[in-house]
Amino acid sequence: MIFASDNWAGAHPRIAQKLLEAAGTYASPYGEGDADRRVQDRLSELFEREVAAFFVATGTAANSLALASVSKTAPLIFCHPEAHVIHHEGGAVEFMTSGGKLVPVGGDGSIQGKIDPGKLKKVIARFPTDDVHVGQKVALTLSQTTEAGTVYSLDEIAELAAIAHDAGMKVHMDGARFSNAIAALGVTPAEMTWKSGIDILSLGGTKNGCWCAEAIVYFNKNDAAGLPHLRKRAANLFSKSNFIAQQFEAWLDSKLWLDLAKHSNHMAEKLVNAVKASKNVRLAWETGSSQLFIIMSDEKAAELRNAGARFYDWETPEGLENSVGAGEQIRRFITCFATKEDDIDTIARLF
Amino acid sequence: MIFASDNWAGAHPRIAQKLLEAAGTYASPYGEGDADRRVQDRLSELFEREVAAFFVATGTAANSLALASVSKTAPLIFCHPEAHVIHHEGGAVEFMTSGGKLVPVGGDGSIQGKIDPGKLKKVIARFPTDDVHVGQKVALTLSQTTEAGTVYSLDEIAELAAIAHDAGMKVHMDGARFSNAIAALGVTPAEMTWKSGIDILSLGGTKNGCWCAEAIVYFNKNDAAGLPHLRKRAANLFSKSNFIAQQFEAWLDSKLWLDLAKHSNHMAEKLVNAVKASKNVRLAWETGSSQLFIIMSDEKAAELRNAGARFYDWETPEGLENSVGAGEQIRRFITCFATKEDDIDTIARLF
Amino acid sequence: MIFASDNWAGAHPRIAQKLLEAAGTYASPYGEGDADRRVQDRLSELFEREVAAFFVATGTAANSLALASVSKTAPLIFCHPEAHVIHHEGGAVEFMTSGGKLVPVGGDGSIQGKIDPGKLKKVIARFPTDDVHVGQKVALTLSQTTEAGTVYSLDEIAELAAIAHDAGMKVHMDGARFSNAIAALGVTPAEMTWKSGIDILSLGGTKNGCWCAEAIVYFNKNDAAGLPHLRKRAANLFSKSNFIAQQFEAWLDSKLWLDLAKHSNHMAEKLVNAVKASKNVRLAWETGSSQLFIIMSDEKAAELRNAGARFYDWETPEGLENSVGAGEQIRRFITCFATKEDDIDTIARLF
Amino acid sequence: MIFASDNWAGAHPRIAQKLLEAAGTYASPYGEGDADRRVQDRLSELFEREVAAFFVATGTAANSLALASVSKTAPLIFCHPEAHVIHHEGGAVEFMTSGGKLVPVGGDGSIQGKIDPGKLKKVIARFPTDDVHVGQKVALTLSQTTEAGTVYSLDEIAELAAIAHDAGMKVHMDGARFSNAIAALGVTPAEMTWKSGIDILSLGGTKNGCWCAEAIVYFNKNDAAGLPHLRKRAANLFSKSNFIAQQFEAWLDSKLWLDLAKHSNHMAEKLVNAVKASKNVRLAWETGSSQLFIIMSDEKAAELRNAGARFYDWETPEGLENSVGAGEQIRRFITCFATKEDDIDTIARLF
Repeated sequence: MIFASDNWAGAHPRIAQKLLEAAGTYASPYGEGDADRRVQDRLSELFEREVAAFFVATGTAANSLALASVSKTAPLIFCHPEAHVIHHEGGAVEFMTSGGKLVPVGGDGSIQGKIDPGKLKKVIARFPTDDVHVGQKVALTLSQTTEAGTVYSLDEIAELAAIAHDAGMKVHMDGARFSNAIAALGVTPAEMTWKSGIDILSLGGTKNGCWCAEAIVYFNKNDAAGLPHLRKRAANLFSKSNFIAQQFEAWLDSKLWLDLAKHSNHMAEKLVNAVKASKNVRLAWETGSSQLFIIMSDEKAAELRNAGARFYDWETPEGLENSVGAGEQIRRFITCFATKEDDIDTIARLF
Repeated sequence: MIFASDNWAGAHPRIAQKLLEAAGTYASPYGEGDADRRVQDRLSELFEREVAAFFVATGTAANSLALASVSKTAPLIFCHPEAHVIHHEGGAVEFMTSGGKLVPVGGDGSIQGKIDPGKLKKVIARFPTDDVHVGQKVALTLSQTTEAGTVYSLDEIAELAAIAHDAGMKVHMDGARFSNAIAALGVTPAEMTWKSGIDILSLGGTKNGCWCAEAIVYFNKNDAAGLPHLRKRAANLFSKSNFIAQQFEAWLDSKLWLDLAKHSNHMAEKLVNAVKASKNVRLAWETGSSQLFIIMSDEKAAELRNAGARFYDWETPEGLENSVGAGEQIRRFITCFATKEDDIDTIARLF
Repeated sequence: MIFASDNWAGAHPRIAQKLLEAAGTYASPYGEGDADRRVQDRLSELFEREVAAFFVATGTAANSLALASVSKTAPLIFCHPEAHVIHHEGGAVEFMTSGGKLVPVGGDGSIQGKIDPGKLKKVIARFPTDDVHVGQKVALTLSQTTEAGTVYSLDEIAELAAIAHDAGMKVHMDGARFSNAIAALGVTPAEMTWKSGIDILSLGGTKNGCWCAEAIVYFNKNDAAGLPHLRKRAANLFSKSNFIAQQFEAWLDSKLWLDLAKHSNHMAEKLVNAVKASKNVRLAWETGSSQLFIIMSDEKAAELRNAGARFYDWETPEGLENSVGAGEQIRRFITCFATKEDDIDTIARLF
Repeated sequence: MIFASDNWAGAHPRIAQKLLEAAGTYASPYGEGDADRRVQDRLSELFEREVAAFFVATGTAANSLALASVSKTAPLIFCHPEAHVIHHEGGAVEFMTSGGKLVPVGGDGSIQGKIDPGKLKKVIARFPTDDVHVGQKVALTLSQTTEAGTVYSLDEIAELAAIAHDAGMKVHMDGARFSNAIAALGVTPAEMTWKSGIDILSLGGTKNGCWCAEAIVYFNKNDAAGLPHLRKRAANLFSKSNFIAQQFEAWLDSKLWLDLAKHSNHMAEKLVNAVKASKNVRLAWETGSSQLFIIMSDEKAAELRNAGARFYDWETPEGLENSVGAGEQIRRFITCFATKEDDIDTIARLF
């Protein structure tokens, strides 16, 4: 019963099988192989627009190199205070941008994990263009789904993107859980990205069935001009890039990615129902995606862990201090492509 | 007939099979899984000493992060002028060290690809310790096998390492083709590394049968203290690090790595014999490993390529200008774990 | 009537005279001259402890290099959200630390410009030691006087420093207006620095009578080990460092620095009295130093500017929105060593 | 008898006097003052073209920021192997360019300190455009006068600049001793810079009569677009930039800079004559500028030092090993604006 994170599982059988088959073949290295080219085409189809896609080793690489590729000297990048890029990437964005600054823009307290448009405008105003003392505004980055498991609506994305564009910035989406957001909203990849104002996407396959498949997707080729040198310099250009391409190909084939995301979201829904049916545990907030935040007592948490369940304790976000009682804490549960209905049933009985 | 590089092949069947089997399991992410730990132990056995090993995405990552981990402000790193780190890694070492300088130290012209000890001493002397104007000497890096396909003897390694140590530096080995060197010398991994003065090794599995398996191996744990933060910051910490561990485990199992290297060296020997038997082509210099440098006419090269052979043209190294006639050029041929005897026979007939 | 900033004035006559006299002499370059050594001794006397002092070109250089010298990979530096280092130094700290992160720690709203100890503890707790995903805690930096013109008491400094030390961090003081703080508190330089827990000081002479005289002062020589290479690499090692040394010598002589700071604080007091005596303008908050924040109407501001006064408009800090009426704004007035009593009298009449 | 370097002297009386007079005035900070603007105009006159000039703290800052301002990711900068930027600036260029590589291009052995056009072409050819593995060619940098005291002719500059431009690079001149070169060649500043293909100049006043006056001069304003943010981030934007402007103004006034350079060159000529008249010492090579390289015995050097002379020992350049006998060494003597005829006479008698 692994609910710790969606990077504990291995790979989906169809992806593993594809790799096995490709093992005996030759391919041009460094992204020049046939499969690399096919994935470019498949992604262009998926996004209903010609895109430029680049494979990298990790989600952190995707985020930090995407942001670096649209940076200038002393760049300012606006993000949510709990964003993965600012709090959990070990300084990668700051390093890849040679000293960029991530400027936190809080939510309004009621919408966990989302940037508030009014606050974004106010914070941006503090950084006048052409003032060498403050640096240069270059990008807004949104996580979809958010670190709090919530999902921006298309309108919310569009509103934030418009503010960023008005300030001369690019808009980046951290799509480590892109598939889950698409499955949750029931929209197309095009709608959730460039049609809503997204310029660059970190597209994550690793958390949704692949061993290691992360790509930076540019919706405007011009934005991608600097990426190849940045990626090589950051030691993120795979020689046998074919092994990433093969994974992505299997992942895109017959919309495997979407089926897997629907499955994990569905498992999460069942888990929500189990929480709601229990007297001992309760949701900290609603998410609508594959991440759940459940308030439970330390006793109950220990009991579940003794029964073999794995999940993380979660820090109480600002504004929710009063929702969490003494001896209680928020715990994060994540479902994924590999989660089994049995596991849900078992943990439901233990709640 | 792919002799272009050893990163064109896929993966060995035993490695592919291992990945397939692991796909259905769960593992702790970020290097904390069981297989990660097992590989640590296996490498300690292999090197007859407790080592600290860290997986990274690429050989460039291994080299640049290894060197960064023993760097100081404004570091000076001494290398051969044709070393991969100085000429073919897109500035990764300079970037990862926040502006380090690779100082080229030439060979003596007669030993292709190797640093000459006398020149090393002379160049080092130009950078006095504690002089802020010149920076800080931190490391010597050797490629084994070298970029010219040659192989340092144990004595040669030991002599260079002693000079570096005397100057207060660490010694790093770029072992992208470590296995081939071991197979060529017929020595143990311990003998070719720490017993000869090597402090840190970039151990490459990718060019010898893996999809993507690169590790930084420290023979003294203290030297590794800075690596974890550097690796994370460089976006080179895999979440599903299990997929690297599984490859390494299969690779180390029953000395698969050594068998594969012996095979590719053996194929190279046969290729050498074919060259020597031909009136049309000749060796530019002897290597003793899986890389060959063959002088042939443009006509012959075109003929081979038309027949489906893939290989690279190679720039004539300084000092060999007179060995290469008009209408001729050096071509690099590389054999690998996947090279078939048939391919050798076919090309031999075409030489 | 220049109240815009304390970097608009030239230099005090005694400092200018000293430079004139030294112009005809020779001195060893790069900090090795006799005057450089004398200033080291004079600073050790001033701080009642042997210090290591290094001249740099700007206050930004002092802050960023001081913090870089105690940094590690992916460093975390805690500061007030309005600190000069985070908001007005063009990304210098992030650059000099090769990608450090400045983590803002808010005040409690009632004490403008000061870090609240409770909040500091809470924020620090979010960054566990040895977690590669969050980076490494290295320093707390305090501005004295603060960017809001307020002055930390010795107890306040000591409390914050103790929290930082407990978390394994160094404590840095941005002393661009160090002299004004000493004059305001009536304490000794030793008391306000190392006796209260400060490890490193950016000591600013430029805003208090010098042309260009900034130094990084280490109270523990070990902390300074990395600075010389960092300073050279950052292009901040003056060849004719004698011209900085001469300024500092004149500045320290007969406590000129303290007399000048007392003068500017005294001019500020008179300005406060003028504000309090006026019906048209009022203080936004009390400061106690040479910086004043005055709420006045746009009309009044225009009137003063027409009369030749120079001062800056100031953004309303969070929490004070209700104190500033429509058509009003906060304006910052700064007095300095060169401010004349006549100027105060003139502007007082105009208030 | 200081011949150690031209940064040991203080400042010329006219420059010191100018600073004294300006001390009592106010000026807008950060390069916005009236004198800053006047110097811009004066430099445009001097160079017979509208230039964009930026003050920085040191010659190292001028070189490294000038090169950074025209850099791209993983930049390649070509220079002489003995250039100050590669050997004596503590890694500043590599740091300011976030990991740039200085590629050494040797001379032909007969012209000390100068880049050989043929070798430049050959080295450039090794770095194909658009190859991510090698980085991006951005600039050629020439030192005028060279580190060996020699002076490029206008034709030599133009030939090298044309090669660089053909490769899509900018051409930078390290003019730490710009004035001495102009005085030596008897040409105009325009002729030696943009009319010969120079795009950016590091203009040094410090070694020729100023306390601290270094500027980056752009002959095409577009090239300067990135500089302001780079300079601020590098902590090289002076607040009281007026004190640099005042020095430059005095320096440019009535061509003081040229008179001082003529004086120091003239003193060097007299020193050359003294060397030639002596049986005990001899020139290592001819320079034609204010730097002399004299071969003398250790005994003679000790004798001169005992008599109070200061000068540096100099490493024997490659190719000249046979010119320097046992017990002998090359010594560098530099004259400057402050060198007195008496000093020359005295040392001449001691030779």
